[in-house]
Amino acid sequence: MDYKALIREVPDFPKPGILFYDITPLLKDAQGFQHIVNDFTERFRDANITKIVAMESRGFILGCPLAYQLHAGFVPIRKPGKLPADIFEVKYTLEYGSNSLAVHRDAIQAGERVLIVDDLLATGGTALATVNLINQMGGEIVGCAFLVELLSLGGRKKLDGCEIFSLMTYP
Amino acid sequence: MDYKALIREVPDFPKPGILFYDITPLLKDAQGFQHIVNDFTERFRDANITKIVAMESRGFILGCPLAYQLHAGFVPIRKPGKLPADIFEVKYTLEYGSNSLAVHRDAIQAGERVLIVDDLLATGGTALATVNLINQMGGEIVGCAFLVELLSLGGRKKLDGCEIFSLMTYP
Repeated sequence: MDYKALIREVPDFPKPGILFYDITPLLKDAQGFQHIVNDFTERFRDANITKIVAMESRGFILGCPLAYQLHAGFVPIRKPGKLPADIFEVKYTLEYGSNSLAVHRDAIQAGERVLIVDDLLATGGTALATVNLINQMGGEIVGCAFLVELLSLGGRKKLDGCEIFSLMTYP
Repeated sequence: MDYKALIREVPDFPKPGILFYDITPLLKDAQGFQHIVNDFTERFRDANITKIVAMESRGFILGCPLAYQLHAGFVPIRKPGKLPADIFEVKYTLEYGSNSLAVHRDAIQAGERVLIVDDLLATGGTALATVNLINQMGGEIVGCAFLVELLSLGGRKKLDGCEIFSLMTYP
C-alpha cells in the first residue's frame, strides 16, 4: 500500500520552517488503518512482547491496536500531572527549553519485554527519554516502532543500540 | 472478568474532593486489555460503523483498537493547535472556565456512521462537544462508548438521544 499517498504535508506547522507530516488522512482511511496495524503486528508477532509503551497522545494511536494484536499490556507515557499514582519522571531538552515525561512506577516489572511505539521519530528526544524510563524499571527494550521517521534529524543515532522499525522514512 | 478489581481508586486527584478512577492497571493487564476491546467489538460488530471518533488522549486507548477491529477509519478529536489542516472547533464550559475541541473538516463525510469513544463519561461536556462537531459534519452518530461512567454526574442526560454503552458504572 502506498502509505505516503495518504500523508498530508503541511508547510510551516506548528511553526514557520517546519514541514509537518500529517498522518490523519491515513488514519481515517479504513484500509490504511488496517494495513499499518497489520504491518507492525507482522514485524513483532514472534518477539514475545509483554508490554507496549506509547507516548501521549499520538503514540497511543498505533500502540493500542498493537497491544491488542500482540496480546500485550498497554502502558501510557504521559506528561507529569496526568498520572495519579507513584511515577518515575524524566526530563529532556528540546530545541528551546525542556520537557518531562512520566510513567507509573508499577507499570512494568523487571525483565519484561517492552516495545516502544510512537508516531514520529524526529530528533529522538522523546524516544530517548522513554528508553531511560523503561531502563529505570528494568524493562528489556525489544525495539522502537514509528510510523514516520525523519532521517535528517538523526533520531536513530540518539537511540543507538535499540532496534528501530519505521514504516515510512523521509529525508 | 471483574474489571473493577483492576481499577485503582485515587482520592483527591487531580484536585481535592475528586475520586479518580485510574484505568492504567486494567490497561497494563494483557488479559484485561483483550477483554475490554473484545467487549466493545462484540457490542458494535454489526453496527456498520465507518468512523471511530475519539477524544485526546485517553479516548485513543480504546478507540484505536476498536477502529481496527471494526474495520473503520479513525478520527482524533484534539485540542486546538494540534491539528494542522482546516478544522471545525467547538467551545464548551467546564466547572471553572471553558475548553475547546477541534476536528479536521475533511475527517467525516455526511452520512457516515460514527461511534464516539472515550474513557470516561462524567458531566458529559466533552462528549456533547464532540457530538456537536460530528453533527456539523453531517455524520450519523450511532452511539457513544465509554469504559467508565459516573452516574451521579448526569452525563447521560446531557447526551439525550444518543445510545450510550458503558463498560463500568459507578454511582
